[in-house]
Amino acid sequence: MPGHEFFRTRTVAEALASLPGGPGTAAERVGLADALGRVPVDDVVAQQALPGFARSTVDGFAVRAADTYGVSEGLPSYLDLVGAVAMGTAPGVAVRPGTAAPMPTGGVMPDGADAVVMVEHTQQTVPGTVEVVRPVAPGDGLVAADEDVAVGQLLAPAGRPLRSADLGMLAAAGRTEVLVHARPVVGICSTGDEVVPPETAEPAAGQVRDAITSALSGLVREAGGEPRSYGIVADDAAALERVLRAAVTSCDVVVVSAGSSVGGRDETAGAVERLGPPGIVCHGIAIRPGKPTLLAQCGSVPLVGLPGNPLSALVVFRLVGMPLVRRVGGCTTMPPEPTARARLTRQIASQAGRLDVVQVRLAPDGAPREATPLFGASALLSVLTAADGYLVVPEEATGLDAGADVDVSLYR
Amino acid sequence: MPGHEFFRTRTVAEALASLPGGPGTAAERVGLADALGRVPVDDVVAQQALPGFARSTVDGFAVRAADTYGVSEGLPSYLDLVGAVAMGTAPGVAVRPGTAAPMPTGGVMPDGADAVVMVEHTQQTVPGTVEVVRPVAPGDGLVAADEDVAVGQLLAPAGRPLRSADLGMLAAAGRTEVLVHARPVVGICSTGDEVVPPETAEPAAGQVRDAITSALSGLVREAGGEPRSYGIVADDAAALERVLRAAVTSCDVVVVSAGSSVGGRDETAGAVERLGPPGIVCHGIAIRPGKPTLLAQCGSVPLVGLPGNPLSALVVFRLVGMPLVRRVGGCTTMPPEPTARARLTRQIASQAGRLDVVQVRLAPDGAPREATPLFGASALLSVLTAADGYLVVPEEATGLDAGADVDVSLYR
Repeated sequence: MPGHEFFRTRTVAEALASLPGGPGTAAERVGLADALGRVPVDDVVAQQALPGFARSTVDGFAVRAADTYGVSEGLPSYLDLVGAVAMGTAPGVAVRPGTAAPMPTGGVMPDGADAVVMVEHTQQTVPGTVEVVRPVAPGDGLVAADEDVAVGQLLAPAGRPLRSADLGMLAAAGRTEVLVHARPVVGICSTGDEVVPPETAEPAAGQVRDAITSALSGLVREAGGEPRSYGIVADDAAALERVLRAAVTSCDVVVVSAGSSVGGRDETAGAVERLGPPGIVCHGIAIRPGKPTLLAQCGSVPLVGLPGNPLSALVVFRLVGMPLVRRVGGCTTMPPEPTARARLTRQIASQAGRLDVVQVRLAPDGAPREATPLFGASALLSVLTAADGYLVVPEEATGLDAGADVDVSLYR
Repeated sequence: MPGHEFFRTRTVAEALASLPGGPGTAAERVGLADALGRVPVDDVVAQQALPGFARSTVDGFAVRAADTYGVSEGLPSYLDLVGAVAMGTAPGVAVRPGTAAPMPTGGVMPDGADAVVMVEHTQQTVPGTVEVVRPVAPGDGLVAADEDVAVGQLLAPAGRPLRSADLGMLAAAGRTEVLVHARPVVGICSTGDEVVPPETAEPAAGQVRDAITSALSGLVREAGGEPRSYGIVADDAAALERVLRAAVTSCDVVVVSAGSSVGGRDETAGAVERLGPPGIVCHGIAIRPGKPTLLAQCGSVPLVGLPGNPLSALVVFRLVGMPLVRRVGGCTTMPPEPTARARLTRQIASQAGRLDVVQVRLAPDGAPREATPLFGASALLSVLTAADGYLVVPEEATGLDAGADVDVSLYR
C-alpha cells in the first residue's frame, strides 16, 4: 500500500503558523462575576483617578510636615487638635500651621495637611494637643489622589485573560462590565466503527468507549473554549463529511479524532478536503506521538484532525490545539503553565528533526526531583493519567541522557 | 492607644495548621461534562479491564509468532490469508499455524494469533498469500486485554482535582458520573464605612468602591469554591455580627475583609469572637504584607479576617485562604502552580521570622529572566495588577541580595 499516506510533515511551530490567525471571536459584554479568565477585546483604561482623593495609609494625625521638622522624643512639636476625620466622608476640618487632625487609615486628607504622622510616633498628655516626636516629610503616610491609577492608565490589557486581581481593579474603577471575546465554540467529532458512547455498560467484542470526546472537552475548557460534541461518526466518508460540514458552519474551531486505521485516516483527509478551500494546510507533524495530525482551514474555521490513539491525540491537542483555541479566543498573552525542574532517571532516545513528547512521573519529594519516563503504546490512556507531566525532547536533539536536568510541564 | 491590638502572631504554616481540617464538603454526583477540576470523594477503581480485548496497535497481519521465526527479506515466511478482521466486531476468523489474518489498527486479535506483523514488513505478490519478511515475538503489535487498565486498578484518585485526561479515562471505563465534593461555598463580606458598591458611578469624597469582593470571588473560583457575596457592611459591630452569623450558618468558609482602621479591626475581632466557640485561633500572621490577619473557627466553619488593604488582603488570601478553601473542598493533592526561575535585579530587605511576599515584574524575554520588585503602599491594587507574580522571602532569611536566583510564583 505505498503512497497511501502523503505527509507534508511540519514542525509544531510551523504547523501552528500554517493556520491563519483571525481577529478572534466576536465581542460580548460580561459582568465582573463572570469575567475570570475571559479575554478583553480592547485595553481597559481608567476614566477616573484612583483612589480619587489623597488618602491616609496609617492611623495617626494629619499635619503640615513643616510643623514636624527637627522634632524628637526630647523636643516634640505640640500641635493643637482640630476635629477628627471620619471614614467615608469629606473632612469637615482644615489643618492650618500648628494644628493636627486625628486620621483613620483610609481617611480623606483635610485641606492644608500634606502628611500623616503615625499614632506610634505621637503622645497625648494634654487634652486638645498632640505631641509629635518624629518628623515626617510631605507625602508621608498617605497616597496621592492618582497614585493607584491615573486617568488614562491601563487597568487590564487586551488579549490577556483576566486575573482575579484584575477583577478587583476593574471593580475599584467602577467598570462592572467588560467587553470580552466570546468563548470559542469547539466542535468535537469522534470517529471509528469501533467507538461506542461512554454510557455503554457492556461493549461488545471489538468495541471501545469514546474517551477522546470527554478528554478533549476538558482541554477545550482549560483553553477557555466551549466544547460542543458532534457525537461518534462511523468510518464512512459521506457521514463524516456531513457532520464536519455542520460543525464548520457553526463552530469557531473543529476537532476530529481521525480513525486509527489507515482507512479511517484516509476518509478523514478526504472528507476534510471536500469541505472547501483553502483546505488541508498540513498533513503530518514532526512530533512523537502524534505524527498523523492534519490541519486544515475550512473558510475561516481551523480544523484539527487528531491521531486515532487517545494518548497521541491528547498530546497533539495540548501542543497544537490548545494554543489554537486560545488564539481564536483572542488571547495574545498565553497564561503561564506549571513546570518543574527535575533530573531524568533514564536515557531517552529521540530522532533529530522530531519533537518527542515523553510522559513522566515525578518522585514526589526530594531535591532535585526525579523524572521517570513512562513508556507504553500510544493506545494506552493510562500512561497519560499516571503521568505527573511531560517533557519535550526538542527537534534539534537526538535524545536526553540519564541524569540530565529537564523541565517538566505539569498537569493540573 | 497601647494594647488596642493583641496579636498572637503565627507563621503561615502554623496559621493554616491552627484551623482543624474537616472531612470536606458533602458528596454530590456530577456528569463527566461538569467534572473538570472537581475532587473525587473516593478512589475511582476499574470494574472492567481495558481495552477489554487483545487489540492490534498497527495495521498489518495477525499471525502466530512462531510462524515468523528466522524469516528475512531473502527468506520470507509464506502464510495463507484467512478472512480479514473488521473494526468494532468480533473476528469471524481464527489463525491456525501457517495462516494470517489482515488486521486494522485497533482490531480484535483473532483466536490463535499472538502477534501482529506490520504491513511494512510484509509483501503480497501472490493473491491469498502474505510474505512476512521480519520476525515478530508473541505480543508484538498488540496490547493485551488488560494492558491499559486491569480490574481493580485506580482510574482517578480521591482528593486530586480531575484532569482532562482523567475524564477520558473515566469515559473509557464507562464511568459517566463521579462522586465529588460539593464546591465549598465561600461567604465574602466586605466592611468599611467608606466602601461603596462597584456600580457607584461617582463616589463621594472619601468613598472607595468595593474591590475586594470581586477579587476574592475570582480567587475562590480559582481554588474550586463558589463565592457568595454578603455585601458591604459598615463599621458597626452589631451589623457585622448579624451578617457574619448568617454567613457562618450557610457557608463552608467565611471571609471578611476587616476594616482598615483600628476601630474597624477591633470590631471585626469582637464580632467574630461572639459568633461562638472555639472562636479566634490566630490573630496576626508573621507575613508582610498581611500581618493583621485573623483566623477563627465558628463551629465547623473556618473564618478568615483579612487586612483592610486590598493588596494585603489578596496576598494573605492567596497564601492562606486558597489552600483552606481547597482543603475544605476535599482536595488533598494541591494542583501545581506556575513558577519561573529568575534573577533578582535589586536587593530586598526582610526581617527574620517574617515571611515577606514581594510582587515582581519579569523581564519578558531573555535567560535568565530578570525579576524586578514592585514596591508601593499596600493600599495600591495597581502594584498587584502590574506584577507578573510574586516571590517569597522565607521566615528564616533576612533578605535577598541583588543578583540572587529566585523562584517567582506566576499569576495566570
